[in-house]
Amino acid sequence: SSASTPIRATLFPGDGIGPEIADSVKQIFEAADVPIEWEEHYVGTEIDPRTQSFLTWESLESVRRNGVGLKGPMATPIGKGHRSLNLTLRKELNLYANVRPCYSLPGYKTKYDNVNLITIRENTEGEYSGLEHQVVRGVVESLKIITRQASLRVAEYAFHYAKTHGRERVSAIHKANIMQKTDGLFLKCCREVAEKYPEITYEEVVIDNCCMMLVKNPALFDVLVMPNLYGDIISDLCAGLVGGLGLTPSCNIGEGGIALAEAVHGSAPDIAGKNLANPTALLLSGVTMLRHLNLHDKAEQIQKAILNTIAEETHRTADLGGTSKTTEFTKAIIDHL
Amino acid sequence: SSASTPIRATLFPGDGIGPEIADSVKQIFEAADVPIEWEEHYVGTEIDPRTQSFLTWESLESVRRNGVGLKGPMATPIGKGHRSLNLTLRKELNLYANVRPCYSLPGYKTKYDNVNLITIRENTEGEYSGLEHQVVRGVVESLKIITRQASLRVAEYAFHYAKTHGRERVSAIHKANIMQKTDGLFLKCCREVAEKYPEITYEEVVIDNCCMMLVKNPALFDVLVMPNLYGDIISDLCAGLVGGLGLTPSCNIGEGGIALAEAVHGSAPDIAGKNLANPTALLLSGVTMLRHLNLHDKAEQIQKAILNTIAEETHRTADLGGTSKTTEFTKAIIDHL
Ligand SMILES: CC(C)[C@H](C(=O)O)[C@@H](O)C(=O)O
Ligand SMILES: CC(C)[C@H](C(=O)O)[C@@H](O)C(=O)O
Repeated sequence: SSASTPIRATLFPGDGIGPEIADSVKQIFEAADVPIEWEEHYVGTEIDPRTQSFLTWESLESVRRNGVGLKGPMATPIGKGHRSLNLTLRKELNLYANVRPCYSLPGYKTKYDNVNLITIRENTEGEYSGLEHQVVRGVVESLKIITRQASLRVAEYAFHYAKTHGRERVSAIHKANIMQKTDGLFLKCCREVAEKYPEITYEEVVIDNCCMMLVKNPALFDVLVMPNLYGDIISDLCAGLVGGLGLTPSCNIGEGGIALAEAVHGSAPDIAGKNLANPTALLLSGVTMLRHLNLHDKAEQIQKAILNTIAEETHRTADLGGTSKTTEFTKAIIDHL
Repeated sequence: SSASTPIRATLFPGDGIGPEIADSVKQIFEAADVPIEWEEHYVGTEIDPRTQSFLTWESLESVRRNGVGLKGPMATPIGKGHRSLNLTLRKELNLYANVRPCYSLPGYKTKYDNVNLITIRENTEGEYSGLEHQVVRGVVESLKIITRQASLRVAEYAFHYAKTHGRERVSAIHKANIMQKTDGLFLKCCREVAEKYPEITYEEVVIDNCCMMLVKNPALFDVLVMPNLYGDIISDLCAGLVGGLGLTPSCNIGEGGIALAEAVHGSAPDIAGKNLANPTALLLSGVTMLRHLNLHDKAEQIQKAILNTIAEETHRTADLGGTSKTTEFTKAIIDHL
């Protein structure tokens, strides 16, 4: 095992299949000698008035203190008086960029075999402002807010990401022909940042056209940056191209270098506790966390083991057409390390 | 030729390739003895102050009077002091529903061979309100407006369409988990209308999930109804599944039964005047216009001739990988009538 002091990282196993897939991550990371000590926090059943959600203040403090975390699926309970757990996390931790690498998995066949792109989504404002009201009976409005500060911040992140990850192009996705002021400001900020990165090609693509191009030929894209709702839509569309949210990682970046990686699929209560869940999305999210910590060798080693296991076909979970249990799949990955 | 009095319909050939593809429609409709007399209106070069656009008041009056029209691509000129021509049409004619049938073309191979769905888009409000302003320097907002009236109207259209076209399911697409008031009202209206159509299955699908499902398995969907921007995005995504906007029809429905069918692709100035354009989208849009006029036999005859010509592969235009000129493709369709 590693001789250096371990890095503390927060782990939210989450609900439903969360604990099982979190176990898989813990086992694989341990087998790979990743120098991480997990600080686990479970989502409770009582609303914490300080967060207005089931997420306690202590668990948020843990991520703030550690600077890094990994999050399983959290089911937002239905009812009044609380906020979505995902939104609470983004807001309280000021997680301003949601980064989703999306690539075709070798050996796992979908209609597309040439996907290799990154969506970078502004994660704090836009259509997610929460500002809505009824103007008169039967007439409601919601506000989309775009600020120069948040737009510059996410654009800067996207270009910096492109540069440091050997990417060549950044496409800003928008609907500025209709929302001239809001999306117009977003584009203006992207253009300003683009000027500072002359080595990166910059282009602007209207969202409807972008979706059409993505389903026709996703290889046209490299890094995509966009306001909140477009990012929500396009990142899921892209995940669909390579097999779905069960296979794609996600990482949220906050001010001060905080990173909270997360599996964005659901908590799948129907198969929870049955040793049937596929831990791939959480594992690959964990890998993005390792890269954020500059543990590139470990990240590479684990990612290869995951991809090779999936490519081999003999140890796939049910969602990928196989018959392996979560624990068998996990063991196969460990064998591939 | 038909003995009955011809039906007058407005024709906007539009810009770029517009006149060439409009010629194709006129020739094929004439060869099929369609009892239509076209009233052609060209988009001018001077802004009409009554419409704030290049579209003249007279041309709008023509659609109002005739009740039906067919529109080619119109390039919205860049500059100040005028509105987008498409938006002008929707607004002035109160075209509240945009209907886009989307199906795999027999013999024209894409990654998907099982697409057969209809997107129905609310066409007058939502994110297209045009209401935007700067709150303070660096902070801008745009308003999404959802009204009970417009939501009920488009929902009613969608269910009625489903019922009269032998469709089994209507899916309302939304993001009401985030925009609880606006998209919430939209869903509420859909539910109210759904109650009146017990024979039609009703479901609600979150937009991000919808896009993922569409790229994984579009056969899951039948009729989709949604607010303006989601419709803009999803209709283009769906067109991409079957080959793009050059192959998919569109029809706008207004109050009092007005129908304006349109090709939604661009005006392709680079190939304009070269006899290279593919008239399929405008032709199939013309077919939807014929159905709206209850000219079902003519609609069926022409649609079959178009699809058979494309299926045969010997007379495809360049965009479909063939070498046929617009006029050759047109003649081939006439031969198939
Ligand atoms: C669960 C929901 C609030 C969330 C979002 O809309 O952002 C989800 O779709 C996501 O992408 O993380
Ligand atoms: C050209 C543009 C304004 C238009 C829209 O956004 O509605 C187009 O994308 C469409 O779908 O007709």
